[in-house]
Amino acid sequence: MMQRKLRILGTGKYLPARQVTSEELDERLGKPAGWVLKKSGVKVRYYTEGETVSQMGARAAAEALKEAGLTFADLDCIVCTNSVPEQPIPCTAALIQNEMGHGDSGTPCFDVNSTCLSFLAGLDLISYTMAMGKYKTVLLVAPEIASAGLNYEQSESSILFGDGAAAVVVGISREGETSHILASRMETYGSGYALSEVRGGGTKLPAAAFEASRAADYLFDMQGEALFKKTSKLLPRFMEELFRDAGVGLSELSIVIPHQGSAMAMRLLQHKLGIPDSRLMNIIGNHGNTIAASLPMGLHEAIRQGRLERGNLAAIIGISAGVSLGGIVFEY
Amino acid sequence: MMQRKLRILGTGKYLPARQVTSEELDERLGKPAGWVLKKSGVKVRYYTEGETVSQMGARAAAEALKEAGLTFADLDCIVCTNSVPEQPIPCTAALIQNEMGHGDSGTPCFDVNSTCLSFLAGLDLISYTMAMGKYKTVLLVAPEIASAGLNYEQSESSILFGDGAAAVVVGISREGETSHILASRMETYGSGYALSEVRGGGTKLPAAAFEASRAADYLFDMQGEALFKKTSKLLPRFMEELFRDAGVGLSELSIVIPHQGSAMAMRLLQHKLGIPDSRLMNIIGNHGNTIAASLPMGLHEAIRQGRLERGNLAAIIGISAGVSLGGIVFEY
Repeated sequence: MMQRKLRILGTGKYLPARQVTSEELDERLGKPAGWVLKKSGVKVRYYTEGETVSQMGARAAAEALKEAGLTFADLDCIVCTNSVPEQPIPCTAALIQNEMGHGDSGTPCFDVNSTCLSFLAGLDLISYTMAMGKYKTVLLVAPEIASAGLNYEQSESSILFGDGAAAVVVGISREGETSHILASRMETYGSGYALSEVRGGGTKLPAAAFEASRAADYLFDMQGEALFKKTSKLLPRFMEELFRDAGVGLSELSIVIPHQGSAMAMRLLQHKLGIPDSRLMNIIGNHGNTIAASLPMGLHEAIRQGRLERGNLAAIIGISAGVSLGGIVFEY
Repeated sequence: MMQRKLRILGTGKYLPARQVTSEELDERLGKPAGWVLKKSGVKVRYYTEGETVSQMGARAAAEALKEAGLTFADLDCIVCTNSVPEQPIPCTAALIQNEMGHGDSGTPCFDVNSTCLSFLAGLDLISYTMAMGKYKTVLLVAPEIASAGLNYEQSESSILFGDGAAAVVVGISREGETSHILASRMETYGSGYALSEVRGGGTKLPAAAFEASRAADYLFDMQGEALFKKTSKLLPRFMEELFRDAGVGLSELSIVIPHQGSAMAMRLLQHKLGIPDSRLMNIIGNHGNTIAASLPMGLHEAIRQGRLERGNLAAIIGISAGVSLGGIVFEY
């Protein structure tokens, strides 16, 4: 197979101004001091106040473009890779394009959605278009407002989430550059769809038919333990096949960037795969679970903190609602 | 560039049982007899009664698989290419996989969304993954429940839409088969996002914050004339570039399959591009605008009606909310 010489050219991150501490949530939920931090491992997460996902996405995208030394005109395509859109119609990528001030540019826009793995699915898809010369430079943007759908009566899931956006500009390695994708893999088990879902707000339970008595149907609902049970059985073989395809071992990676689902999920993943702290990207304590923004945000932080350098091997991996498992092994 | 030897192996269509005639809508809207048919050109459209998009999608998919002479186990990937999801989380493709009775299969699932052009965007993306050997056989499914979001106070848009699903199984041309994609093109103008939109139900106006006084914000809103004005200026050059890339003229196509937006939009398109009736697929009169199901449904009907045969050249083209323009020229 032809090599996918994808190169990450720049990344950006945006967090809303309002910090929500675990102490604030202790109070809000009527829990004893320290309960939220102990349960979630999240000291601080951020909630928007009136900002939209397209505004947050545009800000993260501007940083990623600047970091890449590029301008909007260099982009051949914009892919929004988040979970819940800004509005049902049109796609969020078109709103981000407009919010970036280039609504008349014609740059193709579409969304790719696999909930928390949207960035991974979008990056994988776009890498083939780039390898075949369709696009040279692509912007992937993942802005999320988790706080719009939290159910505080389901305290153990509601305390995990935060809002935020991350963006990544990708291009093609030039002569002498070795960045490329070694392997990518995704598996979906739809039988587990109800383990992590928002039932209302689509065509099944339309927003226009909302009734206060069914409010919980329109908010996030997670059965954490069952989700963990289902996926932990699948994970070892999945990872084995991903790394067999990549032709490298997990131990050869400089950094593993997992979806920041919850502090507990990451501890279990770390234990199951035997990854030392020094090679695991963990940013949940000061971001929370930012849904699909989580993976590109972890990537952004890995680069900014100097834990991922040119020539290093790395992986982004995760489990999402669906239920899906996904992973990409790449050389940065 | 390496050729994309994509071959349409089978297609399927599903319409719900309940027929909604133009006479019924005349009465519902309090209009004189014949008003709806004259305004919309849609004699019959279909509305679901309790069915979900994943159920409709699974039925269309079963027909497409059967037509292709394949079974679920032959599929390497499932892409849902519709506009509004069944529920905000997880992605609709995972729900369709489960509804097909294969929720434990692991077949990767994700959604690609560009409103009415979702099928076109998904087909284009997936063609590159197939050309590079990532997937051999892929199911694209586009089920839509437009009736969940119609605003009957905006009578001219509400009468256009219908529910339904279409599915397409694609594979790779074998030795001696000549099916392939000649060219694909997409452009997005986010400045026109408000010309065709549903504002509420995403993170900007969450379903959980629904208020009856703002009900219209949660329903489809179209400014037809402004949309037409914006896109008709862009269309001629867009088409010229699409066919320049394809290396064939519009006159060499056996059939043009446009998005069935409205009878008027199609008449104008036909006039603008000079396409005779004999080479234009027009199924709006007995389906309505089925949003993203419209393009694959037109493709399905073109094949079923014998208007698209092996070796023929064809194009699917359309304009969607976003605003986006898209087209794919292919040999069937």
